[in-house]
Amino acid sequence: MRLGVCYYPEHWQEAMWKDDAARMKALGIEQVRIAEFAWSRMEPSPGEYDWGWLDRAVDTLGNAGLKVVMCTPTATPPKWLIDRHPEILPVGADGRVRAFGSRRHYDFSSPEYYEASKRICEAVAQRYGQHSAVAYWQTDNEYGCHNTVVSYSPAAVKRFREWLKARYGSIGALNAAWGAVFWSMEYRSFDEIDAPIGTVTEAHPSHRLDYRRFASDEVQRYNRMQVDIIRAHSPGRPIAHNFMQLFTEFDHYKVAADLDVASWDSYPLGALEEQWYAPDVKARYLRTGHPDFASFNHDVYRGMSKLPFWVMEQQPGPVNWAQWNPAPLPGMVRLWSWEAFAHGAGCVSYFRWRQAPFAQEQMHAGLNTPDNRLDIGGGEAARVAEEIRTVLADAQADANAQVKTPVALVFDYEAKWLFEVHPQGADFHYPRFAVEYYSALRSLGFDVDIVSVHAPLDGYKLVVVPPLPVLPDDFAQRLAQSGAQVIVGPRTGSKTVDLQIPANLPPGPLASLLPVRVWRVESLRPNVTEPVAFGAQTGHARHWRDLIELSESSDAAQDGASEVRARFADGHPAYVKHGAVHYLASLFDDDATQALFARIASEAGLAPTPLGDAVRVSRRGGLTWVFNYGPGTHTIDAAIADRDFVIGTRAIEPQGVSAYRSAAA
Amino acid sequence: MRLGVCYYPEHWQEAMWKDDAARMKALGIEQVRIAEFAWSRMEPSPGEYDWGWLDRAVDTLGNAGLKVVMCTPTATPPKWLIDRHPEILPVGADGRVRAFGSRRHYDFSSPEYYEASKRICEAVAQRYGQHSAVAYWQTDNEYGCHNTVVSYSPAAVKRFREWLKARYGSIGALNAAWGAVFWSMEYRSFDEIDAPIGTVTEAHPSHRLDYRRFASDEVQRYNRMQVDIIRAHSPGRPIAHNFMQLFTEFDHYKVAADLDVASWDSYPLGALEEQWYAPDVKARYLRTGHPDFASFNHDVYRGMSKLPFWVMEQQPGPVNWAQWNPAPLPGMVRLWSWEAFAHGAGCVSYFRWRQAPFAQEQMHAGLNTPDNRLDIGGGEAARVAEEIRTVLADAQADANAQVKTPVALVFDYEAKWLFEVHPQGADFHYPRFAVEYYSALRSLGFDVDIVSVHAPLDGYKLVVVPPLPVLPDDFAQRLAQSGAQVIVGPRTGSKTVDLQIPANLPPGPLASLLPVRVWRVESLRPNVTEPVAFGAQTGHARHWRDLIELSESSDAAQDGASEVRARFADGHPAYVKHGAVHYLASLFDDDATQALFARIASEAGLAPTPLGDAVRVSRRGGLTWVFNYGPGTHTIDAAIADRDFVIGTRAIEPQGVSAYRSAAA
Amino acid sequence: MRLGVCYYPEHWQEAMWKDDAARMKALGIEQVRIAEFAWSRMEPSPGEYDWGWLDRAVDTLGNAGLKVVMCTPTATPPKWLIDRHPEILPVGADGRVRAFGSRRHYDFSSPEYYEASKRICEAVAQRYGQHSAVAYWQTDNEYGCHNTVVSYSPAAVKRFREWLKARYGSIGALNAAWGAVFWSMEYRSFDEIDAPIGTVTEAHPSHRLDYRRFASDEVQRYNRMQVDIIRAHSPGRPIAHNFMQLFTEFDHYKVAADLDVASWDSYPLGALEEQWYAPDVKARYLRTGHPDFASFNHDVYRGMSKLPFWVMEQQPGPVNWAQWNPAPLPGMVRLWSWEAFAHGAGCVSYFRWRQAPFAQEQMHAGLNTPDNRLDIGGGEAARVAEEIRTVLADAQADANAQVKTPVALVFDYEAKWLFEVHPQGADFHYPRFAVEYYSALRSLGFDVDIVSVHAPLDGYKLVVVPPLPVLPDDFAQRLAQSGAQVIVGPRTGSKTVDLQIPANLPPGPLASLLPVRVWRVESLRPNVTEPVAFGAQTGHARHWRDLIELSESSDAAQDGASEVRARFADGHPAYVKHGAVHYLASLFDDDATQALFARIASEAGLAPTPLGDAVRVSRRGGLTWVFNYGPGTHTIDAAIADRDFVIGTRAIEPQGVSAYRSAAA
Repeated sequence: MRLGVCYYPEHWQEAMWKDDAARMKALGIEQVRIAEFAWSRMEPSPGEYDWGWLDRAVDTLGNAGLKVVMCTPTATPPKWLIDRHPEILPVGADGRVRAFGSRRHYDFSSPEYYEASKRICEAVAQRYGQHSAVAYWQTDNEYGCHNTVVSYSPAAVKRFREWLKARYGSIGALNAAWGAVFWSMEYRSFDEIDAPIGTVTEAHPSHRLDYRRFASDEVQRYNRMQVDIIRAHSPGRPIAHNFMQLFTEFDHYKVAADLDVASWDSYPLGALEEQWYAPDVKARYLRTGHPDFASFNHDVYRGMSKLPFWVMEQQPGPVNWAQWNPAPLPGMVRLWSWEAFAHGAGCVSYFRWRQAPFAQEQMHAGLNTPDNRLDIGGGEAARVAEEIRTVLADAQADANAQVKTPVALVFDYEAKWLFEVHPQGADFHYPRFAVEYYSALRSLGFDVDIVSVHAPLDGYKLVVVPPLPVLPDDFAQRLAQSGAQVIVGPRTGSKTVDLQIPANLPPGPLASLLPVRVWRVESLRPNVTEPVAFGAQTGHARHWRDLIELSESSDAAQDGASEVRARFADGHPAYVKHGAVHYLASLFDDDATQALFARIASEAGLAPTPLGDAVRVSRRGGLTWVFNYGPGTHTIDAAIADRDFVIGTRAIEPQGVSAYRSAAA
Repeated sequence: MRLGVCYYPEHWQEAMWKDDAARMKALGIEQVRIAEFAWSRMEPSPGEYDWGWLDRAVDTLGNAGLKVVMCTPTATPPKWLIDRHPEILPVGADGRVRAFGSRRHYDFSSPEYYEASKRICEAVAQRYGQHSAVAYWQTDNEYGCHNTVVSYSPAAVKRFREWLKARYGSIGALNAAWGAVFWSMEYRSFDEIDAPIGTVTEAHPSHRLDYRRFASDEVQRYNRMQVDIIRAHSPGRPIAHNFMQLFTEFDHYKVAADLDVASWDSYPLGALEEQWYAPDVKARYLRTGHPDFASFNHDVYRGMSKLPFWVMEQQPGPVNWAQWNPAPLPGMVRLWSWEAFAHGAGCVSYFRWRQAPFAQEQMHAGLNTPDNRLDIGGGEAARVAEEIRTVLADAQADANAQVKTPVALVFDYEAKWLFEVHPQGADFHYPRFAVEYYSALRSLGFDVDIVSVHAPLDGYKLVVVPPLPVLPDDFAQRLAQSGAQVIVGPRTGSKTVDLQIPANLPPGPLASLLPVRVWRVESLRPNVTEPVAFGAQTGHARHWRDLIELSESSDAAQDGASEVRARFADGHPAYVKHGAVHYLASLFDDDATQALFARIASEAGLAPTPLGDAVRVSRRGGLTWVFNYGPGTHTIDAAIADRDFVIGTRAIEPQGVSAYRSAAA
Repeated sequence: MRLGVCYYPEHWQEAMWKDDAARMKALGIEQVRIAEFAWSRMEPSPGEYDWGWLDRAVDTLGNAGLKVVMCTPTATPPKWLIDRHPEILPVGADGRVRAFGSRRHYDFSSPEYYEASKRICEAVAQRYGQHSAVAYWQTDNEYGCHNTVVSYSPAAVKRFREWLKARYGSIGALNAAWGAVFWSMEYRSFDEIDAPIGTVTEAHPSHRLDYRRFASDEVQRYNRMQVDIIRAHSPGRPIAHNFMQLFTEFDHYKVAADLDVASWDSYPLGALEEQWYAPDVKARYLRTGHPDFASFNHDVYRGMSKLPFWVMEQQPGPVNWAQWNPAPLPGMVRLWSWEAFAHGAGCVSYFRWRQAPFAQEQMHAGLNTPDNRLDIGGGEAARVAEEIRTVLADAQADANAQVKTPVALVFDYEAKWLFEVHPQGADFHYPRFAVEYYSALRSLGFDVDIVSVHAPLDGYKLVVVPPLPVLPDDFAQRLAQSGAQVIVGPRTGSKTVDLQIPANLPPGPLASLLPVRVWRVESLRPNVTEPVAFGAQTGHARHWRDLIELSESSDAAQDGASEVRARFADGHPAYVKHGAVHYLASLFDDDATQALFARIASEAGLAPTPLGDAVRVSRRGGLTWVFNYGPGTHTIDAAIADRDFVIGTRAIEPQGVSAYRSAAA
């Protein structure tokens, strides 16, 4: 548990650096990320490097006792490089080449950029790989930000054809896998295949999905190149990348597998404004963010990080990039920081030390204002630093321990691409549904592991699977072996890996555990819901209905009868239980989902504790953390003794945090 | 009256074909449409034809006693053809060349495609023109689908210039007809004229309208080429094209004039979702479709078909292509089928035999599910087949007779283009207003002929003219000669054929029958309506107001006084009757429109029978058909004897159909 | 005070001209604008001029006693010119070259067009510069209409680089001014700088703002070229340009400085439909326009015109170009005309004499209908002409005098561009907020001067400054010297001229008068407002909050204490008064704004007179004009004697106008 900050010495007069470093240290900051956008200062002209200023900056920080996270500067290739190799620029789905003038103006498939990146990474890694102040590395910055994962350049199409050749072997195999005979879309060679854009009506969905997979793999390949270079020159120093909040355009599990630390950039207010939330929800959590959004991301990145995950950039005040940018309520910067630690973070690093007075992000707050006074967020960071000392000093807790929980939620990236390519209902938004399932679990007081569809499931008592169209061959077996109760969302098992309907219809390979046949589906427009009878309770189905036939003749069914636990008004099953598998044929309203999850959790031997909308609980290393996102004071159950509080008290003010020693750590 | 189905042998293993054919026959299907997307299998490489599989497929169907509708495969040119002649690809209004990868990626004006189409049509027609199983033909598939009528390619512009030359003769005549002097848009030669896109503000409306007319004529020319080839090789076998529902991008009357059968593709649920209906209407008819939508199309295509029209593709379950895709209620596939026959259909052909598990339409239901079990729609089709036998066997009826009605509605394609090019009010949507007038007539129990503005009008007692800007020279005379009461919507006669305001102001040439002068108009935003006093009743005007001056001095006025039957709140006439012409100066709300139509129908000697929203009645060949779109049982008037029911009974359940012998057939 | 009209002899048969001229004269019209779109008739082919028709038209008008406003025809370059020099066409932000076929298809930076414009201006000015009937000139037509100020052509980028070189001197200065080091956007030479479009995320805001400034300067340069040519050939005849309503894409102060008359084109109903007003407001003023919209524009153009401003085009009936186009209520054409005169207009000129039956604007009304009968608007114009004679004859008034008022509102063009480039809240719409402040002043009965930020402020008692991000160096001093009470909107002084945050934070240079520090801001989404306590009253803050710290240590503060006159619910100051400066930290609802302005006006020694929503008062030359935009009769205070009414009476019917002799003229 430690604090960090993002710092841009190149933005400020050198005369300020020493004081900055001293004030960071005094505030309780331990690590400082630098240089991720500094290419034009490292290499002002082709091949002419200027390391002097950066040497002095690193020394200044090191001399103040701070550890440096050194970055490769590849997110911002300078103008001279673009002018020499304009083919570096990515191409949009509209066919337009994107221009220099902001950032991330490069194509992952560009051979010219790949080589240029190797050169600058070599240069930086060589220069600072053994510097005593450099303790960590970051590759590039926010891969894919501003919709830059997928490019449609000639270079990308060339590499896509090779990717297809490697995947399918022969063009006949591709035609068969895609069902290209439909609409005479068959190809005679891989060289006939273009990018799936600009077509008269929607391009072939298998073609589109493969293009997304290819683009994701290109990110992985590019990052691995950087990792290899850094490891060669700076062995033993952990390498991170700063992922983004609920960003799903490439497979993060694959990229994280090459890193030591999965870190992410947390901007709860910007996320609330930009995500799918309804206007009233955006108004309710305007200055706090949604109680389950940052948490979801913490758990996503904890699940893929070899070392404890970090928040590489923590929102310290208002930001500049959402449509509207309100200010966090006093206390929220502290709350967000502790929430990250409670979810297992190793470091929370604020973005940025001081608000810059110029360029695109001049309205993005820092820990200090542009006139160099400590801002509210800075004060709260100082308080967190103080509290970290208290917590780490507590003899009865092990605050840095790993988070342990018997509840897992499966989160997948291909699922997002597949439903986007092939939605069948215009608002079928996979990440939203995954977050809604997560939110139901969190509102019941559970800690949640978020895991890949390939992750081991042993040891979990409850596994929740949001709509997951493509199932790995061994998934049903792993579910069964886990012994867990399994909640499965609609559309699960609905597609093969080639984006075809399974021969046995959905849920495809899951039918071995759940002997049903989804013989028909329907998507529902937003102003339509369907009543569902959950015993005496009525809930509502939204977005989607799987119409289910129970298959009495299958092997699995002979193990025991399927139980229809809820029905739609027209009699079709809405929720079927078979053995330990609970299949939901639709997406229900929040109350119904929560009630249903509570029941199944109890059946799994867990003890759900309904918390309402605004209070959340997390457990780590012998401490139980309680966070109050609501407008009123929350009072913790009197069963917790006053003396057990390490942070705060039983009465938690709005935006407040308390931590007490768990009964059984 | 017979059933058909659409079938894709190339999508399935050959081992399945024989069983498929036998099951079709057993179900009661008589005709099978094939091959419209099979070019890549007919001609896998340039000039290398492979007919073997198709020979075997046609033989298999023929041997099972099925008649084949053979298609030309030109809707899906294969990749090799596009790679050889990329200039085949159409160009969008955004200037982008559209890409291969879906369907309809061709430009009607491309000389290369015209020649390639001739070659493949010749080949198919030659191969199957005399095959005993091939009883019918279909040209191409859904001309214009996915917005492909209008292209802005160099080839199209070249042909447009020739089209203009033929229309206007001299460039001076064009400049005068367009009023090109306005904004110095005059041309010195036809070669100076470009496509009307990409301009700084709206391009010249006459230029735009002529471009739409040209594009429509290109479809006609292209289809005629195919028809000529087929007739040469397969004389005597009726040729159809499958038009689309309420598709208005080309003049269907002109294309249908070259065919034997006007058929169309009926997808009531997709249409409801994608058309203009308000969200509450979309929710109300979510799983039935709007009661007047399919009917409107039946009557449109009946009106232009030489032989009885067909439904070439009938929705059999949920589809894939609307934003949201609900499932039809049980019974709707049967209801839609009978509704088509009651409106005069010769064949109802389901799309498709079996749901495909791959490609763009894998979520489009068929009569069978992808795992080859009969779906609900398949069961309903079997019931319809059984009932057809009952109906055809009924001695007192002549179920195959033509539909006869004294009520006509004039529907026009150029009107749609003109109002789109030159709306004056952003939501002035011609097809919507035509359907609303139609709906008022249907809600009063009338059968309706939908006819071209050039059609003979003799024999009708009531002629309804939705807003019709351009009137043929003889139109007023034909109206007068018909003796019918005539209802005329606003904006009728408001433009000359060159898209100018008539010299005598609107209603232009109609002033000979209706001595008024529309001296001013206004369009109204959606949140504004104007009260209208219809005697003691108050209705509401929407969208538009024609401000009318009664011309007492005209010749026609001397025949008798004009009667102002309704006024707006500011005193301007809202509804003027003169002789047999009833001019409506606005578009009124549904209730007011229905009341007004009922009154005029009575004056025409007809007997309106208000049916409400959800019940519809049709008459054909001595049978009266009643359809229940509503959620409750509908009970038919006790005056109909029980013994007169051929299908169903007096009590019609939701989604039910009854047919009884009409009193006077 | 006189009336004019816009006339297009080239649109009509020559046989009609004489009668047209005679009827104009009889109606009371004195000046006629012609020829602004007639290039293709002046020069039908390159270098071949045809002046005959225009000579005869000018003579016909002159012989009827009418004065001609002759125009340069450069708004509509003919096709032959574009075909010879396609590089004249502007390029959109989407990278597409715009096409011929409407109007304004030229790039202000094109050297080819600059030369072609010089040639045609020379030719016209030479031909008519000394003609006895030609009394005035208009350059071009509606500069910038249809989004044509900013072009991204290669020619524009070339000139932009030169513009930057002139502004910054060295590339190092530019990099520093922009803060280009951020994201490695530094340039090594001016030749590396492109247009700020097509970037991956938003382009650099300083880059974008400079591009807007450059584009504005290009308009000024182009217009000055035309003015210079006309002055050379037609000295002494006033030159006008017809600006547009609330058009802000170039700096009108700069362009007007080269003209004699700032005129504008007034379309109150089209403006209401197209501007930001909420749907209920659009419905309320559907057929009158908003009571403060035309007035705002009158006052804008009065403020920049050397001679009395004109309305060059006055809406005479329904128009064609808004999404919906209702008809003005009877009386409104007269009301709008008098409103213009009451605000200081020298001429009101109607657009157009007769509605054209062809081309894009055929649905745009004129004073006469297309069949050449006088329309309502024509009748009202005749009444205005009659009334002008009455008013001018009134011995006690000086109707042509200048408007005098002690209230000024500062309106700025760069502010609009800056907030558009760098909004921080998506709906932060500068012109809207300026009009809202203006509206509050007008609803209190004040006449308002609208002035540039560089204008002298002496003599004003109240100066209102809507959000003004960049302050000239001497602005605070001029405010202080004026002695006026000053109302300052939020975000004022928030940026330097280079679009950076001021070193002392906002309000930047205004801190010398107002010793506060805006240490944080937040933007608020539309469904969020914040209560504000104005003493006992509660108002609501919208859109924005400046969080203010009072700086007790500054020099200015020692002059006296700052007074917090209103606070947000969380205690932050919402309205701070210091000396004569009243700083508003947000944009308040209309009622709160009006109450607050009334209080400050009273403190300035003025007498606010609340008028409500629909009645407005203006004073000019000894007469007080009252306008009734509402649906009911308005009765003027009985203190005005009946005998003092020159126009109308104390009871003003809806859409009515009265004028009485002011007590103190």
